[in-house]
Amino acid sequence: MSAYEAPLKEILFTLEEIAGLPEIATLPGYEEAAPETVAAIFEAAGVFAGEILAPINKNGDKGCVFKDGQVTTPAGYRDAYQRFVADGWNAVGFDPAYGGQGMPWAIVTALQEIWNGGSVAFAACPMLTQAAVEALYHHGTEAQKQKYLPKLVSGEWTGTMNLTEPQAGTDLGAIRTRAEDDGKGGYLLKGQKIFITHGEHDFVPNIIHMVLARHPGGPAGHKGLSLYVAPKFLVNDDGTLGARNDVTCVSIEHKLGLHGSPTCVMAYGEKGGAQAELVGEALQGLPHMFTMMNNARLTVGVQGIGIAERATQHAAAYARARVQSAVVGAPAGSSLPILYHADVRRNLATMRALTQGSRALALFTAGALDRAKNHPDKQIAAQNQALVDLMIPIVKAWSTDNGIRTSSLGVQVHGGAGFIEETGAAQHYRDARIFAIYEGTNGIQAIDLVGRKIQRDDGRTMRGLIDHMTVDLAGFGVQGDDLPALHDRLMPAVQRLGSGTDYILMAGKKDPNLGLAVAQPYLNLCGTIIAGWLLAKEALAAAKRLAAGDGDAAFLKGRIAMARFYADNILAESAGHLAQIHGGAESLLRIDPESL
Amino acid sequence: MSAYEAPLKEILFTLEEIAGLPEIATLPGYEEAAPETVAAIFEAAGVFAGEILAPINKNGDKGCVFKDGQVTTPAGYRDAYQRFVADGWNAVGFDPAYGGQGMPWAIVTALQEIWNGGSVAFAACPMLTQAAVEALYHHGTEAQKQKYLPKLVSGEWTGTMNLTEPQAGTDLGAIRTRAEDDGKGGYLLKGQKIFITHGEHDFVPNIIHMVLARHPGGPAGHKGLSLYVAPKFLVNDDGTLGARNDVTCVSIEHKLGLHGSPTCVMAYGEKGGAQAELVGEALQGLPHMFTMMNNARLTVGVQGIGIAERATQHAAAYARARVQSAVVGAPAGSSLPILYHADVRRNLATMRALTQGSRALALFTAGALDRAKNHPDKQIAAQNQALVDLMIPIVKAWSTDNGIRTSSLGVQVHGGAGFIEETGAAQHYRDARIFAIYEGTNGIQAIDLVGRKIQRDDGRTMRGLIDHMTVDLAGFGVQGDDLPALHDRLMPAVQRLGSGTDYILMAGKKDPNLGLAVAQPYLNLCGTIIAGWLLAKEALAAAKRLAAGDGDAAFLKGRIAMARFYADNILAESAGHLAQIHGGAESLLRIDPESL
Repeated sequence: MSAYEAPLKEILFTLEEIAGLPEIATLPGYEEAAPETVAAIFEAAGVFAGEILAPINKNGDKGCVFKDGQVTTPAGYRDAYQRFVADGWNAVGFDPAYGGQGMPWAIVTALQEIWNGGSVAFAACPMLTQAAVEALYHHGTEAQKQKYLPKLVSGEWTGTMNLTEPQAGTDLGAIRTRAEDDGKGGYLLKGQKIFITHGEHDFVPNIIHMVLARHPGGPAGHKGLSLYVAPKFLVNDDGTLGARNDVTCVSIEHKLGLHGSPTCVMAYGEKGGAQAELVGEALQGLPHMFTMMNNARLTVGVQGIGIAERATQHAAAYARARVQSAVVGAPAGSSLPILYHADVRRNLATMRALTQGSRALALFTAGALDRAKNHPDKQIAAQNQALVDLMIPIVKAWSTDNGIRTSSLGVQVHGGAGFIEETGAAQHYRDARIFAIYEGTNGIQAIDLVGRKIQRDDGRTMRGLIDHMTVDLAGFGVQGDDLPALHDRLMPAVQRLGSGTDYILMAGKKDPNLGLAVAQPYLNLCGTIIAGWLLAKEALAAAKRLAAGDGDAAFLKGRIAMARFYADNILAESAGHLAQIHGGAESLLRIDPESL
Repeated sequence: MSAYEAPLKEILFTLEEIAGLPEIATLPGYEEAAPETVAAIFEAAGVFAGEILAPINKNGDKGCVFKDGQVTTPAGYRDAYQRFVADGWNAVGFDPAYGGQGMPWAIVTALQEIWNGGSVAFAACPMLTQAAVEALYHHGTEAQKQKYLPKLVSGEWTGTMNLTEPQAGTDLGAIRTRAEDDGKGGYLLKGQKIFITHGEHDFVPNIIHMVLARHPGGPAGHKGLSLYVAPKFLVNDDGTLGARNDVTCVSIEHKLGLHGSPTCVMAYGEKGGAQAELVGEALQGLPHMFTMMNNARLTVGVQGIGIAERATQHAAAYARARVQSAVVGAPAGSSLPILYHADVRRNLATMRALTQGSRALALFTAGALDRAKNHPDKQIAAQNQALVDLMIPIVKAWSTDNGIRTSSLGVQVHGGAGFIEETGAAQHYRDARIFAIYEGTNGIQAIDLVGRKIQRDDGRTMRGLIDHMTVDLAGFGVQGDDLPALHDRLMPAVQRLGSGTDYILMAGKKDPNLGLAVAQPYLNLCGTIIAGWLLAKEALAAAKRLAAGDGDAAFLKGRIAMARFYADNILAESAGHLAQIHGGAESLLRIDPESL
């Protein structure tokens, strides 16, 4: 059982109603994103993910082979990647000046979910290329852009991010890899990097490494870091490949999951130094890195959504096929698929609700990103940028936590068969675990949210969002049962969000450790409530379409039912989050760490 | 990093204050459980688990080898098992009439946690033997007992439970393996069983299989099942081993975790029929099986606790060793172990709280089991049996869910290193996943709780427990900050438990599906609140000892701090559970299952 059908109907609905794609398509630069084009793109993406990616995902679990510095990816991955590039998928969101198609990031984000639904290990490679593109695009010289971007944008070459070292994970100031002047205006890199996703592989002829290293003569700590670009093969002036650079993969990791994506230990300068160019300003490595971190964190959040959708489809298919026991109220002996048992339905509905809530959160954020980038009104653009900055850690952490929770429920729906690797449910559970860790652990996301996004901003952006939600909910009307019920459940939840935010702001003034101690529950509070609001917005939009007799009635009624399930079952958890925020910090901080 | 130090101080404290071991030791039959004996037992158990079991756990992850019907366990497991038997550990809780030591089950339960902390894959084998012992002890003839029990009690032979078939998991009525009369008063078994833990291995010369199969001429469904015993080697009248029986292991599963414990496909009767004897009454297979199910479910709950403790120790050791970044408020550049970062402290304290809460729940239940078994006052014994029946599904599901949650947090504390198998954190995460599934999935536990333990009993036992908790909390006094604070948090929580129970009882009368739809949140409500009360009881006991100047002050203060952390951070989640119970069923049941 390894089928995947891209949830196109859900995705297009959320793009339209939550990301606001029709409005985004009116912004300068996004004119290509007309409805017919968008529909065609997603139809083709669904076919690609379902027919090319989904079938290789299970085999990818067998892992990559490392030998003599070479990495051989699992059967099917290289061909799939080359077809991905040939079909133009890698270029969708990038600047047309370098060969991109300039599509809104909301579309890219939705496509990324689909690639991840097909195969998370596959989608990891373009994700890293995206990061390299953004680093070069924002900070590279025009010559560097001309040299690298066209082939990275197309995907003919791939990119990597080289940050982590054994002693430098979250704490990048501890990086030891160093750059030396090569006397010719360039640099020589020496050192070792670990956890380098797709640092070496067999997809393409060249790999472009973005490397954080100590600048010659720079100060200690993170202020001494610059960003460098070091290709696997040097690039001649005419664009052809030159000599092999002094950067090699020395091993790949044996991991819990994501086996189809090699995680490399990279050695720079074992033969004197890897040739590299400075990217952007000297000693600005960390700020430059953070430029692209926002998008990368959004993309990791989307990995969580892709695997949640895949795990949900996998479990639902099993629940449809597995006949076991009679359902309560049914005649004795009339065994039915477990899909009809209330407890299994709870697991599946929870999986659907968390997946759809995460998707709404991600596409809401991606829509804001597009407005921040291309809205002609500078004030609106700035407001959207602030919203993006606020939302990114929430999307990253909440969606990836949901990826774990959902894939764990997927194993549970399978019963004993879920523990057997052959079934494939366990692979999603293993694969999903990393998304909560890399690109800043979810704890780091929570700290970023509390410190940089709430306290430093004095809560302005969050309060603006809360006001917006409150006004929005006031428009839910009184017709029928569902929308008033959603209103009645969401209003106190939004008040909880306000109360939690007040605590975080108070903590920022009183003792930063109080806020850090409840950063995780605060992030959970934010994700749970904002996603609940977005699903309620979907329900309102669905109700309007139903009233207008517009669209697939069963699908639209399903949106409303799911928003209510979410409100009654997931949103309900926010009461616990708020209690943790108000009561949890002091009792944590009084426990002697040495006793833990 | 694969050390494990049995938490003897915590275990002995919980045994004394929560299980009530000093009082249990006064019951007829338990006189051996004097304090000095108990202390000596646990000290030796800690040494065994730390020195013999913990070191083989990681190697066990390499898995068993199957060849030509033989299973070779990982290096070290066979020797460890033989030493386990030689040291008498297998016999601790069994009837002295068959070679057991007759110790209270509270002690056995606490020891099981320690074996599981050492190696869950190792501890799985004695767990199955225990089940076989109980089935034979309660239902076997005296001749059968004499034949099998002494060697099963000592552990010289091991036992298995053969229930599941491909089409018969939760639904045991679908079993096809059948028994035929052999014309000599015995039976011949024919069929295939799957998921047989330690169905074949190299620890001992004989394996005694307890098999659920269709009785000759019996009706269809679960009423046609009898329980049989079929040894790997037939046993001669003089106790020596006879011919090889017609039962073989045909393959072992490739699983997500618990690799050190072989999960076997067993074929009965490939050469005409496996010789077997009926155990107990014909056609009473399922009820007989449930006799031992209670203890087995308690033991599986304890597996969750053992791995939670191991994962917590593993993560805490990493957090002590891993230096990364300065802590808020510390001088710049003064990096410290991540143990001191508030967010990591939250993860570790959550792990400790869930582990200790689960332990308190399990030992509370085991103490009641001992009173149910040996209390001379029949009414008290019966009350305790009802309490055990109520608690078993809660302990099983809540503790094993905590095993997953805790081992997942353990991976998270490790950051990127947690995803690398070498670190060992991921093994706990993989191993822990099965405990929520086998011996009745946690969904089945929740259904058992709601249907058999609450609705069928008309809530009497739960209401009795709630009344007891309320009276108990009233005695928490007003001195100091902590006990009044615990009282103030627990009283509304206990009211929530009453409110959730009211809903379940109402649902039982109105529509059973309503109760089934919220069975999981109800079980979570029960586990979360009862464990919170037990930790608060520990805090009260600690405060009394502190006031009396009796015992290790730092340890006792730690009990109080942990109870408060739990109350403020874990108990807080019960608000969400109650909201799910009151609002969650109808919105679930209105979602068309076909749309899931």
